[in-house]
Amino acid sequence: MRLAELAVRFGCELRGDPEADVDRVATLQDAAAGSLAFLANPRYRRHLAATRATAVILDASLADECRVAALVHPNPYATYARIAALLHPPPAFAGGVHAAAVVEPGARVDPSAWVGAGCFVAGGSRIAARVFLGPGCVVLAGASVGDDTRLVAKVVLCHDVRIGARCLLHPGSVIGADGFGQAPDAGRYVKVPQLGAVVIGDDVEIGANTNVDRGTIGDTVIEEGVRIDNQVQIGHNVRVGAHTVIAGCAGISGSTSVGRRCVIAGMVGIAGHLTICDDVVVTGRTMVSSSIHQPGMYSGTLHAQETRRFRRNAARFQKLDELAKRVRRLERGDGEGNDDDG
Amino acid sequence: MRLAELAVRFGCELRGDPEADVDRVATLQDAAAGSLAFLANPRYRRHLAATRATAVILDASLADECRVAALVHPNPYATYARIAALLHPPPAFAGGVHAAAVVEPGARVDPSAWVGAGCFVAGGSRIAARVFLGPGCVVLAGASVGDDTRLVAKVVLCHDVRIGARCLLHPGSVIGADGFGQAPDAGRYVKVPQLGAVVIGDDVEIGANTNVDRGTIGDTVIEEGVRIDNQVQIGHNVRVGAHTVIAGCAGISGSTSVGRRCVIAGMVGIAGHLTICDDVVVTGRTMVSSSIHQPGMYSGTLHAQETRRFRRNAARFQKLDELAKRVRRLERGDGEGNDDDG
Amino acid sequence: MRLAELAVRFGCELRGDPEADVDRVATLQDAAAGSLAFLANPRYRRHLAATRATAVILDASLADECRVAALVHPNPYATYARIAALLHPPPAFAGGVHAAAVVEPGARVDPSAWVGAGCFVAGGSRIAARVFLGPGCVVLAGASVGDDTRLVAKVVLCHDVRIGARCLLHPGSVIGADGFGQAPDAGRYVKVPQLGAVVIGDDVEIGANTNVDRGTIGDTVIEEGVRIDNQVQIGHNVRVGAHTVIAGCAGISGSTSVGRRCVIAGMVGIAGHLTICDDVVVTGRTMVSSSIHQPGMYSGTLHAQETRRFRRNAARFQKLDELAKRVRRLERGDGEGNDDDG
Repeated sequence: MRLAELAVRFGCELRGDPEADVDRVATLQDAAAGSLAFLANPRYRRHLAATRATAVILDASLADECRVAALVHPNPYATYARIAALLHPPPAFAGGVHAAAVVEPGARVDPSAWVGAGCFVAGGSRIAARVFLGPGCVVLAGASVGDDTRLVAKVVLCHDVRIGARCLLHPGSVIGADGFGQAPDAGRYVKVPQLGAVVIGDDVEIGANTNVDRGTIGDTVIEEGVRIDNQVQIGHNVRVGAHTVIAGCAGISGSTSVGRRCVIAGMVGIAGHLTICDDVVVTGRTMVSSSIHQPGMYSGTLHAQETRRFRRNAARFQKLDELAKRVRRLERGDGEGNDDDG
Repeated sequence: MRLAELAVRFGCELRGDPEADVDRVATLQDAAAGSLAFLANPRYRRHLAATRATAVILDASLADECRVAALVHPNPYATYARIAALLHPPPAFAGGVHAAAVVEPGARVDPSAWVGAGCFVAGGSRIAARVFLGPGCVVLAGASVGDDTRLVAKVVLCHDVRIGARCLLHPGSVIGADGFGQAPDAGRYVKVPQLGAVVIGDDVEIGANTNVDRGTIGDTVIEEGVRIDNQVQIGHNVRVGAHTVIAGCAGISGSTSVGRRCVIAGMVGIAGHLTICDDVVVTGRTMVSSSIHQPGMYSGTLHAQETRRFRRNAARFQKLDELAKRVRRLERGDGEGNDDDG
Repeated sequence: MRLAELAVRFGCELRGDPEADVDRVATLQDAAAGSLAFLANPRYRRHLAATRATAVILDASLADECRVAALVHPNPYATYARIAALLHPPPAFAGGVHAAAVVEPGARVDPSAWVGAGCFVAGGSRIAARVFLGPGCVVLAGASVGDDTRLVAKVVLCHDVRIGARCLLHPGSVIGADGFGQAPDAGRYVKVPQLGAVVIGDDVEIGANTNVDRGTIGDTVIEEGVRIDNQVQIGHNVRVGAHTVIAGCAGISGSTSVGRRCVIAGMVGIAGHLTICDDVVVTGRTMVSSSIHQPGMYSGTLHAQETRRFRRNAARFQKLDELAKRVRRLERGDGEGNDDDG
């Protein structure tokens, strides 16, 4: 692609030779001639001077430091992402069903969709236009997959789940397994049938080995534009608002509603039956145990210290309530024997 | 189903028209005529007055507020679960082997069992009566599956694992992968062969992408009636007592024994080589690092605060031991220079 | 095997009858004649006196207590692991492709490798000598698997990943799914294409349902001899140094580098863009939020207490910063009204 064409197409200001060509992306450090690099995080600024990239995407504040051609844009990272997708598209495919796939009678598979080797597509399901089902996917009865959605490999869609358009589901993800409903009864549990489904909006990405459970009576809902990383667990009846991101190993318990444009970092846990409002950021590994009604950033995890030191602090924590009472007594000028401050 | 029949079958007191029919379940809010709803959690009491359900399952204390027919039972949630299972059974199936399944010679598959598309059932394994193997399941050599057990899809049973009767295993679960045994030796590790198996009792449910590892020499054991959610990791040589529930993303390290009727909440971690007695409740995200010998409820995780505030508290935690010493000095009336209190 | 032969082969001092035979391993407690047991952890010393094993592997300090034959070695656990592997080898297999596997034209599969039922091996991939692909594995285009590596079942290798020799990958593991790159742009996210691959060295073990994500531009790298347990999440661009072990449910965020010979315990989280030096031990459940430049042991998680007690302490933690200020005021001899200590 000529730089002039990229600049026009992605709304960049071009500084440098408009006729120069790039055909791939690279990091600033590893770029060779013909590569396009980007600089979004100032911590990598030191690599700018020596880069051999043909051009660099960056913002105006850094453009003067760039000695090669520059595509100047206020959001260099998003611009990089878009250009990288253009230069490195996923492999094209033709519609059809692999000889080693099973498509049951009564499944509606668009002729432009691809059903890969080892897939099973049950009767009553619907695979829309230009869908790609990589090898080993399972689509159970009544499930549907929207236009241009891509299941990389070994994805399981349980019965009646509905996946939107332009979604991307990574290997091992399971959409629509039963939610965890167990009714205690005389020292045992009675399984609560999980009769709802899962509804996933358009432009959603779901990571490898991630689960979204089906609802108990109603549906679990993932709204449009949500991005979910690997090994995330979304419980039954949860709703995740549009354009929220959820990083790896996070878990959201049943019946919780997470707002729009939230950022849920890795390993965060959110308890059940809560409401998290729009525009909330929860930092890594935090446990959210009550609803959040104010946008903002929330945290709750201690960080690593040298073990010997941490253990001394943790031992003090085990008696923190008593320590606070002792401080209260000191403030009151009481002696040590007095323990009436609750 | 007529209400009179449900009342008799499930031991409810019926208030209202015994001839009324219900054919499905619904929430109080969404119910229409012909639906059966339930009220177990008093927080949803406000929906009772306006419900259009034909009947509601609830306990005696709330029955007077119910304006439609009532099925009165001291445990409305478990009663709901049982009636919902009756009204919404899983699809029936006939025994047989799908043309796209592989059943090796020497596998014993009961004629009433179903082996779905893409399944692999190895020689020396045993599939009992009315078992359902959904698409893409793998049953390795010597594994056995008890009567009426259901593997939804893409479940892996490694060699020699034994699954009881009436179990339910969700997609992506892996039973009997090697436990994590690594013997350090001169800066490297020697793999310790995992020669035991996994034994899973009757009426056990295992969630999607959950793992139960095989034992090192003896077996890992999950007793009857245990219910395990998604993405749970059960290490080698663990024993989980009967009728214990384990919520999503929890992990139990090797050689730990968990008692009967315990409740292990989401994201709980239990270290290895511990004993947890019967009737222990561990709340969400808690780390259990030593054995528990008294029934009761145990906790250990901090909860989210606004980040700015949390960080100030966490910074203080990093010096909590010193703070405690300073308090001790104040109590003694010592000056600041004295640091001899350990 | 005769004990004399084992002693010579594994460098043990033999005390007892060199002609005695063992054909299997067992625990000290359960051993019968013909079994070989071991004693590495002194907590099991009490079982030594009564064992019926034919021989026991132990170190010199415990050898005098052994009433049966002894194979004396300074590292009894590693020696046990090696002998157990010899006595209990994985089943032998012949090369070939199962009739229900799909090997695309252009895939290079060594004749000594086995491709199991339901496998899909894409064109452009390479399966080396004596590789074992258990049922249901997927190897996408351009991926390669080194000599003697074993994929147990249902492993997914995404395009262009490279697996070394003598590796062992457990069911449900996914190598090379897209890293989680999302560029925010006007309240939405633009997916960042993940164009790198994954390179896994020799003698690596990867647990069930574990993920190693592909790099954004460069590769994610797992060096030789690394051992990774189940349900571990390794983000894009991570490097894990040789002979490091990572226990179950741990997570390493993108672009972090972990050194050689580290021990990362279960449920540990390591934030992104960090450097962890060689020879670091991180104890269970710790959150590592900044780089570690000194070898040593690091911790960061509180442990379970009785809930009532924990909650009182946790409530005090929520105001720990204020408590510290109150102590400071007491030290200064200030009154309660003064709040100028930040």
